[in-house]
Amino acid sequence: MENPEIRLAAGPAQQGEHCFIGLDVHFGENVTLGHNCVIEDGVSLGANTHIESNTVIRAGVQIGANSLVGSGCILGEYGTDFCQEGTRHVQPLTIGDSALIRSGSILYAGSEIGFSFQTGHQVTIREKTSIGDHVSVGTLSDLQGNCVLGNYVRLHSNVHIGQLSRIDDFVWIYPYVVLTNDPTPPSEQFAGVHVHPFAIIATGAIVMPGLDLGQDCLIGAGAIVTRSVDPYAVVVGNPAKTVSDVRKMRHKITGEKVYPWREHFDRYMPWENTGFHTWYTGLTQEEKEKHGIEALTE
Amino acid sequence: MENPEIRLAAGPAQQGEHCFIGLDVHFGENVTLGHNCVIEDGVSLGANTHIESNTVIRAGVQIGANSLVGSGCILGEYGTDFCQEGTRHVQPLTIGDSALIRSGSILYAGSEIGFSFQTGHQVTIREKTSIGDHVSVGTLSDLQGNCVLGNYVRLHSNVHIGQLSRIDDFVWIYPYVVLTNDPTPPSEQFAGVHVHPFAIIATGAIVMPGLDLGQDCLIGAGAIVTRSVDPYAVVVGNPAKTVSDVRKMRHKITGEKVYPWREHFDRYMPWENTGFHTWYTGLTQEEKEKHGIEALTE
Amino acid sequence: MENPEIRLAAGPAQQGEHCFIGLDVHFGENVTLGHNCVIEDGVSLGANTHIESNTVIRAGVQIGANSLVGSGCILGEYGTDFCQEGTRHVQPLTIGDSALIRSGSILYAGSEIGFSFQTGHQVTIREKTSIGDHVSVGTLSDLQGNCVLGNYVRLHSNVHIGQLSRIDDFVWIYPYVVLTNDPTPPSEQFAGVHVHPFAIIATGAIVMPGLDLGQDCLIGAGAIVTRSVDPYAVVVGNPAKTVSDVRKMRHKITGEKVYPWREHFDRYMPWENTGFHTWYTGLTQEEKEKHGIEALTE
Repeated sequence: MENPEIRLAAGPAQQGEHCFIGLDVHFGENVTLGHNCVIEDGVSLGANTHIESNTVIRAGVQIGANSLVGSGCILGEYGTDFCQEGTRHVQPLTIGDSALIRSGSILYAGSEIGFSFQTGHQVTIREKTSIGDHVSVGTLSDLQGNCVLGNYVRLHSNVHIGQLSRIDDFVWIYPYVVLTNDPTPPSEQFAGVHVHPFAIIATGAIVMPGLDLGQDCLIGAGAIVTRSVDPYAVVVGNPAKTVSDVRKMRHKITGEKVYPWREHFDRYMPWENTGFHTWYTGLTQEEKEKHGIEALTE
Repeated sequence: MENPEIRLAAGPAQQGEHCFIGLDVHFGENVTLGHNCVIEDGVSLGANTHIESNTVIRAGVQIGANSLVGSGCILGEYGTDFCQEGTRHVQPLTIGDSALIRSGSILYAGSEIGFSFQTGHQVTIREKTSIGDHVSVGTLSDLQGNCVLGNYVRLHSNVHIGQLSRIDDFVWIYPYVVLTNDPTPPSEQFAGVHVHPFAIIATGAIVMPGLDLGQDCLIGAGAIVTRSVDPYAVVVGNPAKTVSDVRKMRHKITGEKVYPWREHFDRYMPWENTGFHTWYTGLTQEEKEKHGIEALTE
Repeated sequence: MENPEIRLAAGPAQQGEHCFIGLDVHFGENVTLGHNCVIEDGVSLGANTHIESNTVIRAGVQIGANSLVGSGCILGEYGTDFCQEGTRHVQPLTIGDSALIRSGSILYAGSEIGFSFQTGHQVTIREKTSIGDHVSVGTLSDLQGNCVLGNYVRLHSNVHIGQLSRIDDFVWIYPYVVLTNDPTPPSEQFAGVHVHPFAIIATGAIVMPGLDLGQDCLIGAGAIVTRSVDPYAVVVGNPAKTVSDVRKMRHKITGEKVYPWREHFDRYMPWENTGFHTWYTGLTQEEKEKHGIEALTE
């Protein structure tokens, strides 16, 4: 009879040349490695996961099954303290199943990431970042650590998330948006931005420290947001002012209502193919609370 | 008598250690490779081309002669579908002669690029991008694919080009500019920006979806462009408003006219050393049409 | 008796596999290398310096003692002329002691950098950049070369510094800030920005060419700065206008004065733990002049 433990301990199913594999590494079935990979001590890679060439997985990192890590990534990178002091206080980096981490991305130790996680290329995610399920972080985005992203959050390319930010479920953030955190730079009294469910922050908007962006609000491109934003409000300008309510907006060409977007768009979302209302109606109260959307009245 | 076919099939003239070379790879004369290069099946590299260390050239990529590819690049990267489904539908990536692709750049399969192409470091160019001749794309720029760049287009660092964008010949785009494409984010009804010949988009400007930026217009730094812009117009502000005509602008110090820029600047341009009018007068009608500048009256 | 010269010439104390080491390389004591490193001819690495895997140190680069260079860096990269013409005019790149250069950073030949230098990931620094001591350059920042940074300058992530910029001591610059240099793009008549000591440029501000930003001024987030800024002035908006004096500003929550920031913040600064006034009073006139702060009256 087969003993899976023995097989799991046997190494990757396939590996390129010049890979360096540490001690106590756990390989699920059918794990494959490219060339020149460095897999440090205590790493765990789930079944069917593939690591491309030149990628470094630091000590203790855990990656779920059916994942793909591109070339030139560093997962579980040590923070500055390690670099400067030469001591190793490794916190785990854990990444759920079905991750797709594109080439050149750097994820620090000390974060926890859910399943179906996706990144673009050359993303940086610092320590103490908590990320839910089905989250996508675009190319060159820079998460400064010590922040929380919910489920189904989608960051486009080149988004900058300051420390202490809190981003709820179903939020969309577009390129070059910055969530700041220092009201009187330079200081050490940080105040994070809180973005509520379904909010949309369009390209190049900058949000001042400590503000709340209400559920379903729409921050216009290039807006400099200096006050908290009400639910459903549309704000634009520098400084940003409320100019409309998303529920009044119509598509310029089709003339149709387009917000709340959840009623008109379902790609990547749990209500894909079923529609929002059907999905929402089928949720338990607990599930609604978990998503932070228990109070939706429409 | 020499048989060039046999010599071409013989491998690179020089290569570093630990290179992995696939089947049916075509090497022109004097091709050289650094260390740890991966050259997959069916790749074709023109004469005198050099590939630096740690670079991956995926299956079927064609690069012209006299080119230089920096270290850590990935050329012909497979799109998401490949990554997720494990199937390989490789479209060709073709790059013309005399390319200079700096280190860390990632060019997807499925694009066609002309000659004298240049990139900065860590550029990302997604699939279905069509790029003419003599184009330069700066460090960290991010082309989202499914877009068209003409000839002599110059993108500075960190430019973001959304899908469906169309950029005509002789356009200059400066750092942190974004050409957006989604009028009602999130949606799937994209509308690209069309930038006409000789237009200039200064640092940090954001252009809303579906707009036309007219020939020779000048978009000021940080402008949020919400309406199409007339030829020769100067627009600034948030939202951007027309404040002048480029032909009225003078250099603050010298007091000289500076626009249309083609009459005052020739670096990198086909009229270098001869001047614009001499060059333009010498063009055939066909050539003018190819550049989209057949109607220039001055 | 021990002869240190012989030991220094003997190679690194420890190295990974597949490293390529050129001629006349000088290793201080206890230098260590990761895997696949390329150390070209004439490089000098100070004692206790560690180079991580896949990093390339080009010919003639000098790095001080107690430094750490992350993986996938290129230090001493040749400029375009080399790439295109195939000739090698290597200017030195020198980096002082105690540098921390994070992974993926590219520093060109022809620059001089002081001690305690720090970078984030994937930073690009072009040739002819002069950088003082205790300077930090954040992830993805892009210094275009031919510019001068003083001491204790701190650039956050994704800052873009145009050629001819001059940044004095104790300046803070936040993400996505651009110092531009071309008053009539495209041209070749560049005019750099001069940022005076203690100035702060908040997130996403763009500064037009040739301007002076006065000592202790505060440029608000997203400001488009079209005129020079007075010392201590607070400017915001597009175009930026003076709205206050930093000395009048108070923290929204604590109600305390927060500027000049040097009196309220000391992290990373030479007056850490002692306070600014004690430190300043203890300086010689020469030292004050070196910092450009000889005229401080308060």
